[in-house]
Amino acid sequence: MGLPQIEELGTIETPILLTNTLNIGIAADALIEYMLLGNPDIGIKTGTVNPIIGECNDGYLNDIRGRHVRTEDVFQALETADSGEVEEGAVGAGTGMSAFEYKGGIGTSSREFAVSKEKFTVGALVLSNFGTQKELRIDGIPVGNELSCRQEQRQGDGSIMVVIATDAPLNDRQLLRIAKRAGIGIARTGSIASHGSGDFIIAFSTVNQEKTSSNEPIRETKTLKEDGAVLEIFFQAAVDATEEAIINSVMKAESVEGRDGNVREGIPLEEVKEILKKHGRDG
Amino acid sequence: MGLPQIEELGTIETPILLTNTLNIGIAADALIEYMLLGNPDIGIKTGTVNPIIGECNDGYLNDIRGRHVRTEDVFQALETADSGEVEEGAVGAGTGMSAFEYKGGIGTSSREFAVSKEKFTVGALVLSNFGTQKELRIDGIPVGNELSCRQEQRQGDGSIMVVIATDAPLNDRQLLRIAKRAGIGIARTGSIASHGSGDFIIAFSTVNQEKTSSNEPIRETKTLKEDGAVLEIFFQAAVDATEEAIINSVMKAESVEGRDGNVREGIPLEEVKEILKKHGRDG
Amino acid sequence: MGLPQIEELGTIETPILLTNTLNIGIAADALIEYMLLGNPDIGIKTGTVNPIIGECNDGYLNDIRGRHVRTEDVFQALETADSGEVEEGAVGAGTGMSAFEYKGGIGTSSREFAVSKEKFTVGALVLSNFGTQKELRIDGIPVGNELSCRQEQRQGDGSIMVVIATDAPLNDRQLLRIAKRAGIGIARTGSIASHGSGDFIIAFSTVNQEKTSSNEPIRETKTLKEDGAVLEIFFQAAVDATEEAIINSVMKAESVEGRDGNVREGIPLEEVKEILKKHGRDG
Amino acid sequence: MGLPQIEELGTIETPILLTNTLNIGIAADALIEYMLLGNPDIGIKTGTVNPIIGECNDGYLNDIRGRHVRTEDVFQALETADSGEVEEGAVGAGTGMSAFEYKGGIGTSSREFAVSKEKFTVGALVLSNFGTQKELRIDGIPVGNELSCRQEQRQGDGSIMVVIATDAPLNDRQLLRIAKRAGIGIARTGSIASHGSGDFIIAFSTVNQEKTSSNEPIRETKTLKEDGAVLEIFFQAAVDATEEAIINSVMKAESVEGRDGNVREGIPLEEVKEILKKHGRDG
Repeated sequence: MGLPQIEELGTIETPILLTNTLNIGIAADALIEYMLLGNPDIGIKTGTVNPIIGECNDGYLNDIRGRHVRTEDVFQALETADSGEVEEGAVGAGTGMSAFEYKGGIGTSSREFAVSKEKFTVGALVLSNFGTQKELRIDGIPVGNELSCRQEQRQGDGSIMVVIATDAPLNDRQLLRIAKRAGIGIARTGSIASHGSGDFIIAFSTVNQEKTSSNEPIRETKTLKEDGAVLEIFFQAAVDATEEAIINSVMKAESVEGRDGNVREGIPLEEVKEILKKHGRDG
Repeated sequence: MGLPQIEELGTIETPILLTNTLNIGIAADALIEYMLLGNPDIGIKTGTVNPIIGECNDGYLNDIRGRHVRTEDVFQALETADSGEVEEGAVGAGTGMSAFEYKGGIGTSSREFAVSKEKFTVGALVLSNFGTQKELRIDGIPVGNELSCRQEQRQGDGSIMVVIATDAPLNDRQLLRIAKRAGIGIARTGSIASHGSGDFIIAFSTVNQEKTSSNEPIRETKTLKEDGAVLEIFFQAAVDATEEAIINSVMKAESVEGRDGNVREGIPLEEVKEILKKHGRDG
Repeated sequence: MGLPQIEELGTIETPILLTNTLNIGIAADALIEYMLLGNPDIGIKTGTVNPIIGECNDGYLNDIRGRHVRTEDVFQALETADSGEVEEGAVGAGTGMSAFEYKGGIGTSSREFAVSKEKFTVGALVLSNFGTQKELRIDGIPVGNELSCRQEQRQGDGSIMVVIATDAPLNDRQLLRIAKRAGIGIARTGSIASHGSGDFIIAFSTVNQEKTSSNEPIRETKTLKEDGAVLEIFFQAAVDATEEAIINSVMKAESVEGRDGNVREGIPLEEVKEILKKHGRDG
Repeated sequence: MGLPQIEELGTIETPILLTNTLNIGIAADALIEYMLLGNPDIGIKTGTVNPIIGECNDGYLNDIRGRHVRTEDVFQALETADSGEVEEGAVGAGTGMSAFEYKGGIGTSSREFAVSKEKFTVGALVLSNFGTQKELRIDGIPVGNELSCRQEQRQGDGSIMVVIATDAPLNDRQLLRIAKRAGIGIARTGSIASHGSGDFIIAFSTVNQEKTSSNEPIRETKTLKEDGAVLEIFFQAAVDATEEAIINSVMKAESVEGRDGNVREGIPLEEVKEILKKHGRDG
C-alpha cells in the first residue's frame, strides 16, 4: 500500500509500517492519525499524507479474523522506534509469520564499504513469510532438503517485505535497481516466489531529502556516478544483506504456538550448523 | 490501494470503494470486516482479501482531519449498492470533491455497440477531483476559458479515479489497454495531470470470472480477438465514456458549502450551454 | 528500439534516429557503424553502443518492401545535423508519413519560460503517422469533422514518435513524468491511440551529462525541486509543445504522391483557418 | 529489440534471433528481408513486421567492430532451424560469449509434467554471457569459488538472453509471471545482474495462436486456471529449466581462442564434478 505514489513522486512521507494483511486498514488509519497529530498543517495548508504499509498473511498462527492490532499498538510502535539494534525473529509484525515452514519474521543485515574513501552502508530489513522447507538454501547449501525432520504444515501463499536503506546518494532509478537486486537475495534463499505472493521491496536513501520549505527551484544534489564498478558494490551489498536478513529472520525465530493449537517450530539450529559444516561452512 | 496485487493476479476480490485520502484506512478496515462477515472461510481455509480503494483529497470542502467516514457508512454503502441508475455529482465520495475549480464528484457514462451482432457495453464511473477552470474543455471547446466568472479558489493537487467495466470477454492485457485509453478521455477534458495527482484507472470485465471452487486446471474462456478493427471500437468507447463521465460529474454537481465557509460553486449550466451553442454544439 | 536500456541505465549514447519500420535494421546498422568510426574505443576498451531508433510504418506512400534507406543516407543525415531551424512536414523520416488521413511527418514546437529568473526551454519534435480525419482536433476544435472533403484512404494502424528535450536539470523520474504528459498532448489532437500503434515518447535533459572519463564516484548535480508549482510549468510546456508540434507536422506537409499512384493530400490550409476562425480562433 | 510491441500486442510475429550487440542492425535487417520474402502481403495488405532480437556483447573473443554476421548467415540460420536436439555451448550466437569468466554460450533444458493427466512442457534456451568465476553456483554449491584455477580475464558488463517456451495455454499475464521466475533461475547460478546487463527474458506459449485470417471477433481459448498449486508447477519448472540451461551452456562450451589471441577456457569439467561430489552431489 502506498507504492504507486512513491513511483510517481519519489518521496517517502511517513514511517514504513509492517503488519498482517487484515490489519492493513487499521494500521493505515493509525498511521494517518499519527501523522495528523504531529503535523497540524496536513489537510489544511499542505497536502495529504500517503501511508506506506507492507503486509503478509500470518493466518496459520494468528487469528487474523480478529484483527488484533489496535491504534494504540501502532502508536506505541511509532513512539518507541529508535536507531539502536533491531530485534529479530518472532517480534512485531514477525510474531505470527512463517518462513520455509519454520518460524520466520523480522530479520536484518547490512554491509559497510568505502567508495573512494567515503564510507557507505546498505542495510536490509525483512519480514519473512514465504517458502517451503525443501526450498530453503543457506549460502547455497540446500539445508531444507537435508534437515531430518519434515515439516507437515505446508503454508499457503507466502510473501516477503524487504526494506533497503542506504546513506549513499542514490537517485530514484539507482534505488529501483538496488530494489531489483534485493530480489536476487530472495532468490538465493531458495524461493520460487509462489503464486499468491505479493513481494514488496522498497529501497530508499537518507540523503537528498526534500525540504518542503525550501524555495529554490533548482537544488544541488549529490548523486552516485552511473559507473558499473561503483554500482555493483551496492548491488552486491543489497543481494548479500537481503539474503542474510532472511536467514537471520529464521535463525532468530523461536517456536510459537498460535491459534487453535497451531505450532510453528523454530528451525533446529544445531542441525542446521551441522549441515553447513558438512558442506564446508563454518556454520 | 490494492493495485499491485491486481497486476500480479489479475482478479478483483472485493467491491471497489471510493473515498477521501485520509479515510482510506477506515474504509479498508471496514471493507475487510465486511468481507470477513460474508465469507467465513477467509483467513481460515482460503487466503486473505485484498481491498481495492481509490481516494482523492477533498480537503478544500471537507474537514479531512476529522476523518468522518465510519465503518457504518461503508457497510451502508455496500449493503445498498444495486444495479440501477447511478446518482451523479456531489454524492458519496463525490460530496466534497472539486473539478476544474467547480464542484465535481461522481459521474458516469457508457457506450453500447455490437460486434458481429453480439452486443457489448463499456461503462465508466469517475470520481473527479482535478483540473483548473481554464483547462476545462467540453467536446473540445475551451469552455473553462470562456466562462465569464473566474473561480478564485485554486485547488491544489488533484486526481481522478476511473473505473471502467465491460461485459465483453477482454483479457488482462486488453483491459490494461482499455485503461490506458481512459487516460485519453481524461486528457480530452483539458487536464495536464498535475504534479501530485495519483490518477487511478482500473478496468475489469464481468466475463470469465474465476470460480475458486472449480477443479479443472484448464478452463475454456472466451476472449476478444486481437484485431485492430474490433479493439478500436472498445478503445473509442472507453475514451468517450470516460470523457462524458467526467463532464457529467461536473454538470450534475450543485454548489456545496464546506468547512470554514469554503464554497465550491456548481458550474453555471446555462452559460456552459450558451458557450457550446456559440461553437455549434447543441449544448 | 533501444528503450529498455535507457530505462535501466538512464543515459542516451547515440543520436536518435527516426525512420520507417522496415528500415530499422539498416538504420541501426548504419548508426552503429557511424559510432564505431567516431569512437575507436567502442568494443575494445569501453562497452558497446545502444542505438536508439524510432520507426513508423509509411507503407501507404512508401514502397517499404524496397527498404530504400541506405547506410549513406544515415551518414548524410548524421553529418548534416545541426542546431538551426528544423524543417517540418514531408521531410526526412516524415517524407512518407500520414496523419489524420492527410500528409503528416515532422513537426516541432517549443516553450520558453523562467523559473526564479532562470530561463528554460522544453522542445518537442514529432514524427506523426497516426489518426483519422474525423478525429483531428486543433486547439480543441473538431476541425477534422468540419472539413468539407472526406479523405477516402483510411490509413491502417498508426503511431507517433515524440522526442522531448529540455535544458533544465530534470532527473530520470521527472523526465519520465514529462514524457507521460507528452501523451496528453497527443490525446489533445484527437487520437485514441489505435490498436497497432507503438507510440514512442522519449524525454531527455541536456544537463548533468555523464562524462565517462570522470573518476569521482559522487557527482554534484543540479536537480529541479520536486515541487508541484514548478513541475507543472514543465508539464504544461510538454503538453502544449507536443500538441503544437503535431499540428505543425500536418500544417507544413504538402501533398505527396507515392507508390502505385497513392496520394496523400496536404491538409487544406485555408479551410482549416476558416473553421478555426468560425470558432473564435485566429487561425 | 522488439519487446515493447510484444508487451502491447501480446503476439510474436517472427522467429527470435540471438546475436551479438553490434550485429543487431544487420540481423534485424536480414530478418525483415526473410519475412518479406516469405510473406508477400507484408507492407501491402497487412501491416509491417516487428523483429525480435536479443543480443549480448562478446567483444572479448569476437572482433565485434568487424560485424561479421552477414545477411546470408541469418538466412542460413533461419532455413536450417528445426525441432530436433539443440546444440549447446560455443555455437551460433554463443560462439564468442563468456559466462562466469569461462566459455559460455547456448544452453537448453526443459521440464515435463502432468496437470490432471494432461502433459505439459516448459523449455528454456539461454545465451549466457555474464557472471564472474567467484559468483558461479551449481545446484547451490559455490563451485566458482572452489575451483583451483583463478580466471584472470575479468569480463565487463555481461548479460543473458532467456527464451522460455511452453505448450500449456498460459495467458499474457501468466507468461509474464513465468518470465519473472526465469529471473530466479538466473539468480540461482550466482549472478547479481551486473550494472550494464540488459537481461532479456521472453516467455511464449505455442497454444492460442492468433490466426490473422479468422473473422470471429470472440474466440474460444483455453487458459490455465489462476490457481496457485497449478501455477507453481510452472514457476518451478521455469526456475529449474533456466538454471539448468545456464549451467549446461557453460558445461558444454569448449575453450575458444578469439581476436588478438584472447582465450576463454572451457570450465574444467572433472574438477567441477569433484567439487560437486565433495558436497554430496552426483556430479
